[in-house]
Formats: sequence, C-alpha cells, structure tokens
Amino acid sequence: MKICQVEKTLVSTNRIKEMGHRPLLVVKEKGGARSIAVDAVGCIPGDWVICVGSSAAREAAGGKDFPSDLTIVGIIDHWSEE
Amino acid sequence: MKICQVEKTLVSTNRIKEMGHRPLLVVKEKGGARSIAVDAVGCIPGDWVICVGSSAAREAAGGKDFPSDLTIVGIIDHWSEE
Amino acid sequence: MKICQVEKTLVSTNRIKEMGHRPLLVVKEKGGARSIAVDAVGCIPGDWVICVGSSAAREAAGGKDFPSDLTIVGIIDHWSEE
Amino acid sequence: MKICQVEKTLVSTNRIKEMGHRPLLVVKEKGGARSIAVDAVGCIPGDWVICVGSSAAREAAGGKDFPSDLTIVGIIDHWSEE
Amino acid sequence: MKICQVEKTLVSTNRIKEMGHRPLLVVKEKGGARSIAVDAVGCIPGDWVICVGSSAAREAAGGKDFPSDLTIVGIIDHWSEE
Repeated sequence: MKICQVEKTLVSTNRIKEMGHRPLLVVKEKGGARSIAVDAVGCIPGDWVICVGSSAAREAAGGKDFPSDLTIVGIIDHWSEE
Repeated sequence: MKICQVEKTLVSTNRIKEMGHRPLLVVKEKGGARSIAVDAVGCIPGDWVICVGSSAAREAAGGKDFPSDLTIVGIIDHWSEE
Repeated sequence: MKICQVEKTLVSTNRIKEMGHRPLLVVKEKGGARSIAVDAVGCIPGDWVICVGSSAAREAAGGKDFPSDLTIVGIIDHWSEE
Repeated sequence: MKICQVEKTLVSTNRIKEMGHRPLLVVKEKGGARSIAVDAVGCIPGDWVICVGSSAAREAAGGKDFPSDLTIVGIIDHWSEE
Repeated sequence: MKICQVEKTLVSTNRIKEMGHRPLLVVKEKGGARSIAVDAVGCIPGDWVICVGSSAAREAAGGKDFPSDLTIVGIIDHWSEE
C-alpha cells in the first residue's frame, strides 16, 4: 500500500453511475504525482493515509463492481516525513 | 485513479473484436507519457478526466470481458495545473 | 493501454505449455524499455500498436488461462512520434 | 516479487474493518519509496523480506477479501546489498 | 512481459506454505532493479528469460492460489543486449 497525504476533495459531476456518490479525494505520494483515491474511511485534507491499489481497491471501496484502482483504507496515526 | 488530459481520438481500424466500437482516446498525464484510454463518459479534447486502471478498467468499460486497462470514468469540473 | 512500436519476433523454444504457439513480439514504448507482448492481431516490425496490460491482457490473448500481462489488441492507423 | 527491508510497524487505529488486526509494516525497496505491507510471516525491523503485489497479495494476506496489494510472504536468509 | 536475466537462486527458509517448494530466483531487468520470480521452466544463472507479472503470474506459477506476481514462463533462445 502507498503512503499518501490528502490534498482536497475532487469535484466531478459527470461520471459513470457505478461510482455512486463515494467521495473522491486528490492524494499525493511524497515526491510523486497526484492521484485520485476513493475515500472509504472518512478523512480530511492534511491526513496521511494508507492507499490500496490493484484489484484490492475494488472491494475496499465497497464491492467487486466498484471501479476503483486506489482506495483509502486507513489513516496513519502519526507520520513524520523526514 | 490518474488525472489525465484528453488529447485526441485514436484511429485504429485493425483491432480485436472484443474492443467493439468503443471510442479510444489518447490521454496524457501531467509530465507523463501518452496512454490510450477507453472513453466511458463522452469527453472532448482538452478535458481533464479521471482514468481508472488495473482490473477495474474492464468493468468500467462495459463488462468483465472488455479488454481495457485504462478507462475514463469521469470528467473533472475544474482543474488547474499549478 | 500503451502505445508501442513492434521491433521483431522473439524466439523462445523453451516455454510453458499454456503459452501455446501464439507469437511473442518485442515491443518498445517511446523512451521506455523493451517488453514482450502477445500478438492478437497480426502485426509486423515497425507497426505502432495498442498494448493492453493488467488482467485484461489474459482474455485479449485468447482466454482467462493465457499467461499474458501484455497483449497487442490493435494497430494504429497513423502515428507520428513528434 | 520485490526485495524490501522492514523499517517499523505502522500504527493506524482508524481503518476499514476488512483489514482486521493483521500487522502493517513500513518497508523500503533499495533506492525506492517506502510502502506499507501486510505481514504474513512474522518479521522484525531490519529483516530483508519478499513482498508480493498485484492480486496475489490478497490471498497471501489471508483470503480473497483481504484488501492488500503488498504482502510479506517470506524472509530472506541472507541478503547483502552490494 | 519483461525481459530479465537470471542472477541466482534465492534462499528463504521462512515463508508462507502456499509458496510450496517452487524455486525462487533473483532476476534483473536491464538497467532496472532486482526482483524475485518463481521459476516455472527450469533455468540457470545467466539465462535471459520471459517474466510475466500481474494476475497472470499466479496461474503461470501453478494455479490461481499460488501467490506470485512474477513468474518465469520461457527462456529466450538468443538475446544480445545492445
């Protein structure tokens, strides 16, 4: 799983129905590019989070049919970027 | 999911029948390489879009049998590349 | 999907039986490393092609049991590498 | 599979229930970024370990429903980073 | 699939039972990092091999339950690294 920091909520009114109303967040890996993740735990900008990818992201987002390849599955209690 | 910008439609007359007639678009991640994505929402060149990869790209493109590893699942309302 | 150019046929007499006799080609992404792809459309060296990866590569290569992680699913009509 | 070194245990009290109480470890590939892996063998900081990704990480972590994309499946007896 | 060269056998006595006794080899992509692959064809150090990743690596290694994300599926007859 990747260690990312939440930046903000992403607004996209035009999306496929399978995505439902699950919140999508912009996250950023340290020194990496921005990605979009489905939020399955309820987090806020600034949080350091655990993001799961691959096929595991689907069930973590709510079910086999959910079209996610990156899902936030946990909030890290303390993370200091040294 | 990746944040990409749509460049143009890709023309490929010679392709496997499982791909059907779904539109294929050339997309570009910021600072990244060009990729080809299946369009599931109907977007136009210049749009910033949400692209899902991994196994989730198949169902997002129309079903488990669709041979996609990158599918556009949403259009981002406002995206400023700072 | 990736945009690759076909370089040549790969000869490997010693391989697992699940791969059958499907042709394997050496392909190259622009500025990227060489990879090996299963040819599902019939292409020749020099062709610019669409390569699908992830789990979708298996069915595109002929069935769920085919051990491919990169399959050529289409030939691009015109591609100019600017 | 990747060759990683275990750094420490990760503390995240707020996570989805599917993750259960399996230990999560911070691991580091040589010259690569830090990742989080599910520990399926019982290892300690400093160990060089084998990490499996992709869909195989799920079953290695305990079952198809376990939301892991990186699971430690073995400890390497001797590894010298030359 | 990736083109890798076999370096040596990896010794790991402490691993999950699902891995059985299948040989694990250290392989290296040209200019890339070392990885660990399951050997399904029987190769020796120095061989240039075809490595399949993603979900296809599981069945290539012996079955859907085998926790592999990289499996050697063929030996390349002649490979000159230019």
